[in-house]
Amino acid sequence: MKQSQMFIPTMKETPADAESASHRLLLRGGFIRQNAAGVYSYLPLGYKVIKKIETIIREEMDRAGSQELLMPAMQPAELWHETGRWDVYGPELMRLKDRHGRYFALGATGEELITSLVRDFLNSYKKLPMNLYQIQTKYRDEKRPRFGLLRGREFIMKDAYSFHDSPESLDKSYWDMFNAYCRIFERCGLKFRAVLADSGAIGGKDTHEFQALAEIGEDTIAYSDSSDFAANLEMAAVLDTDTAEKGNALSLERVPGKQVVDEDTPIVAQAFKTRTETVVVFIKATDEMNDVKLKNILATDLIEPFEGDSLDLMHLDEEIRVFADNGLKHLSQAVLYNKAEDITYVHVDPDRDLSIESYNDFRFIKEGDPSPDGKGTIKFARGIEIGQVFKLGTKYSEAMNATYLDADGKAKPLIMGCYGIGVSRTLSAICEQYHDEGGLIWPKSLAPFAIHLITVNPKNEDQYSLSEKLYQFFMEQGYDVLWDDRKERPGVKFADSELIGCPVQVIVGKKAADQIVELASRKNKERIETSVEALSTDVDELMNALD
Amino acid sequence: MKQSQMFIPTMKETPADAESASHRLLLRGGFIRQNAAGVYSYLPLGYKVIKKIETIIREEMDRAGSQELLMPAMQPAELWHETGRWDVYGPELMRLKDRHGRYFALGATGEELITSLVRDFLNSYKKLPMNLYQIQTKYRDEKRPRFGLLRGREFIMKDAYSFHDSPESLDKSYWDMFNAYCRIFERCGLKFRAVLADSGAIGGKDTHEFQALAEIGEDTIAYSDSSDFAANLEMAAVLDTDTAEKGNALSLERVPGKQVVDEDTPIVAQAFKTRTETVVVFIKATDEMNDVKLKNILATDLIEPFEGDSLDLMHLDEEIRVFADNGLKHLSQAVLYNKAEDITYVHVDPDRDLSIESYNDFRFIKEGDPSPDGKGTIKFARGIEIGQVFKLGTKYSEAMNATYLDADGKAKPLIMGCYGIGVSRTLSAICEQYHDEGGLIWPKSLAPFAIHLITVNPKNEDQYSLSEKLYQFFMEQGYDVLWDDRKERPGVKFADSELIGCPVQVIVGKKAADQIVELASRKNKERIETSVEALSTDVDELMNALD
Repeated sequence: MKQSQMFIPTMKETPADAESASHRLLLRGGFIRQNAAGVYSYLPLGYKVIKKIETIIREEMDRAGSQELLMPAMQPAELWHETGRWDVYGPELMRLKDRHGRYFALGATGEELITSLVRDFLNSYKKLPMNLYQIQTKYRDEKRPRFGLLRGREFIMKDAYSFHDSPESLDKSYWDMFNAYCRIFERCGLKFRAVLADSGAIGGKDTHEFQALAEIGEDTIAYSDSSDFAANLEMAAVLDTDTAEKGNALSLERVPGKQVVDEDTPIVAQAFKTRTETVVVFIKATDEMNDVKLKNILATDLIEPFEGDSLDLMHLDEEIRVFADNGLKHLSQAVLYNKAEDITYVHVDPDRDLSIESYNDFRFIKEGDPSPDGKGTIKFARGIEIGQVFKLGTKYSEAMNATYLDADGKAKPLIMGCYGIGVSRTLSAICEQYHDEGGLIWPKSLAPFAIHLITVNPKNEDQYSLSEKLYQFFMEQGYDVLWDDRKERPGVKFADSELIGCPVQVIVGKKAADQIVELASRKNKERIETSVEALSTDVDELMNALD
Repeated sequence: MKQSQMFIPTMKETPADAESASHRLLLRGGFIRQNAAGVYSYLPLGYKVIKKIETIIREEMDRAGSQELLMPAMQPAELWHETGRWDVYGPELMRLKDRHGRYFALGATGEELITSLVRDFLNSYKKLPMNLYQIQTKYRDEKRPRFGLLRGREFIMKDAYSFHDSPESLDKSYWDMFNAYCRIFERCGLKFRAVLADSGAIGGKDTHEFQALAEIGEDTIAYSDSSDFAANLEMAAVLDTDTAEKGNALSLERVPGKQVVDEDTPIVAQAFKTRTETVVVFIKATDEMNDVKLKNILATDLIEPFEGDSLDLMHLDEEIRVFADNGLKHLSQAVLYNKAEDITYVHVDPDRDLSIESYNDFRFIKEGDPSPDGKGTIKFARGIEIGQVFKLGTKYSEAMNATYLDADGKAKPLIMGCYGIGVSRTLSAICEQYHDEGGLIWPKSLAPFAIHLITVNPKNEDQYSLSEKLYQFFMEQGYDVLWDDRKERPGVKFADSELIGCPVQVIVGKKAADQIVELASRKNKERIETSVEALSTDVDELMNALD
């Protein structure tokens, strides 16, 4: 495409509110434009990349046996009432009323709609399993949209749903999708980790998030430095590796006020309320309590921190359940300040002094801890969530009465999985990983154009005619070529070329009359003179050497 | 794809509210499902066809030099205020309020948004012309959604917008788009007419609608039986071909009451009010007044019928403008009932008796009239509007202050064109033209699968293994194959195959052991036995012979 005819509104200045590299460079490179907070247009360059990502997703989803459909964004409120989510979802769900006063949700997710679509048809085990996906615009009214496409209010998502008659069948789909996602993100050139994640209150159990590694990521990933292990910070189990013999306990002592005792390990208590009970957890003061682990141990979906200052920690009511972190198991000398009495207890032996029901893993993992798989040491990284696979179980099918008849003619709720990829998020994540100060550096598989052909001075007849010849030639070779034929200053052209970030640059300048041009990769920028004769081979070689 | 694994919920019964063949058969064939009034899901079969239509559109739009982008459906209300359309558009525009109380339109059309996107960038004549398109979901809150996808509330549209610095440049884009549309609809296999249409109140002048011929069409097209001429009924000019000498006038006579006079031609008057004046038009009683023509002659965007009974037609106030249809030009003996006096005037000579300002074309064309291009005779057909090309002029750029600097450095409003194709409407129109009683009959270019391979009894080992072999073979040949491997009764399978409508059917039945199968086209249904050896050639030949 001739650049003079293309809509690429590059920007010299850095937009004031662009906090991340992807946001800043997608704007500056003329890939996207903001239309409202969290609402963007994909301009021709940006949409070319989006379509390449979508093609990769389609190919891998189709290969994994999923079928594409397209559901509407307008979802009748009645469906959301069936699952109760109309009331639960909160202000992030965009809602609208039609001219007849009927309410609709603008789809933030599609569990209700897809379940309503299949529930009459998938009525026999013979029709299972079934896996359906769509690539569709989704809506979420984020309170604070930020980072451009990373947290938008209108965004592109691939969402898939599978239906099964057994946990084993669901398990197979789950791992098929898991593997398809790995292939998709690998083909996109992303550095990512598939991490164990918390299934939260959605029901179901297994879930993995796909996290693209990036400094600006909102999630922390704990990973092993010597194995494949990776988990969301909140999900990483802490190994109970302390095998030290417990030392001799000393007599419990009481000291007035809040005191520090050097030879004793400080411990603290954290109190919580569930729907039915009060729980106290003792933990080392240097460790951080992880609520998610308590939730899972209690098998509850709701715990609330509880102001425990009034609790007399040394003489707790029998109705309060008392737990301790594994780190206390081998402690014989702990120090605990009991605010209710304003007394510091010294030489606390948890076993002896704190009616503990059981020791468990309650704390957040830390860098330097041993990896839970026994291999290597834990490190932290920041990640951008670009995908998730999830075992839903029967939460939606039960609520919406979506049943099938099993081989014995008995009606059972469909067992479901769901699988999402944030398409516009993936675009942002790629930009976070592929850029330098001057602009984007596209991986070959996603570049809007493979070659940026730059005519330094198009008014020069030699330069123009050689450029035109090369433009035709490379297109005939099957390369997607962007030809900067604009009558702009060379400085403007090179700056724009850096911003746009095509993998290979061919520069036609002063030596055009001698049939000599310059060749460079966007990545290392080093320009090499080459003859027109050798150019084709040189470009192929350069291209092959790139990501 | 194996049919046993695909989501194709065919229906035996005809849905009660499906009024048109396309609606009925798309539902019955498992191509679409309704989620709410005017809101549909495209199931895997339907979405395969949609994607093929979109591919054709993309190829032809790209070829015509248009660039694809994707704008959001959420359009800030502020933009619609700039053009005043927020107030004018009425209840068809879906509106929503975000959590911060800001209003958005759900895009029904994109003139405001695209103008806001380009107005800072297209600031010089050097950057013009520019043509941008998107394929996007659109929203219109139709009062009475009907005919399935034909008049939906959420639908897929291709909308394109072009920007120019001269009417000549706009004209070129207009005809480039016109020709691209012809290629698109031809490649879709549609019988269609590009018809002159009324530009209405949107501003601008030239406009053509692309009408797919179909009985259920909501528009009437007047076309010539011997030329390319076609126009919307309201736009077809009536030739003034009456060259007869005017007969001798007789004396005007007055007869009390409302009388019929055999030798005189009955004429009537129709009265209108514009914003500034009152107008009376005399026309033959057997002709039908066409308001659009009066609007165009008066160059006004608003006329309202006016109850003219109190007007004394024979002695009209001088401030009232009086026109007559060309059909009265050669009349010397007309009869006119003047209700104001309750008198019938006989032997009226319009020239002599009715202070007529001018004779013009005011009536609707009729079947049998000569074609306005002088070639042949007018016939009527019903059409479904599937596309429109439109010269917008400067209506939006002026309202939104979208200007460019011309060669003299003078700021001028961008001259615009817009070009739409209803993608989901096109799907419906194709179904209206390609079906029979039993179901759909897809043209090759759009069929969800080229070959429907039907195993009559998959429990029979010979049939199953031969089918499997053929399935692999045809896929390797590059054919898209749907293999009905289901354990259903043959009657169910053949009925479903008719509904789904793949162009070619290969039936593996009792003679499988003898390596003999049956071959049929969906269109004529005649089954021919053929050996497996000859099958490949026979299928290629049959395929080549089809649309």
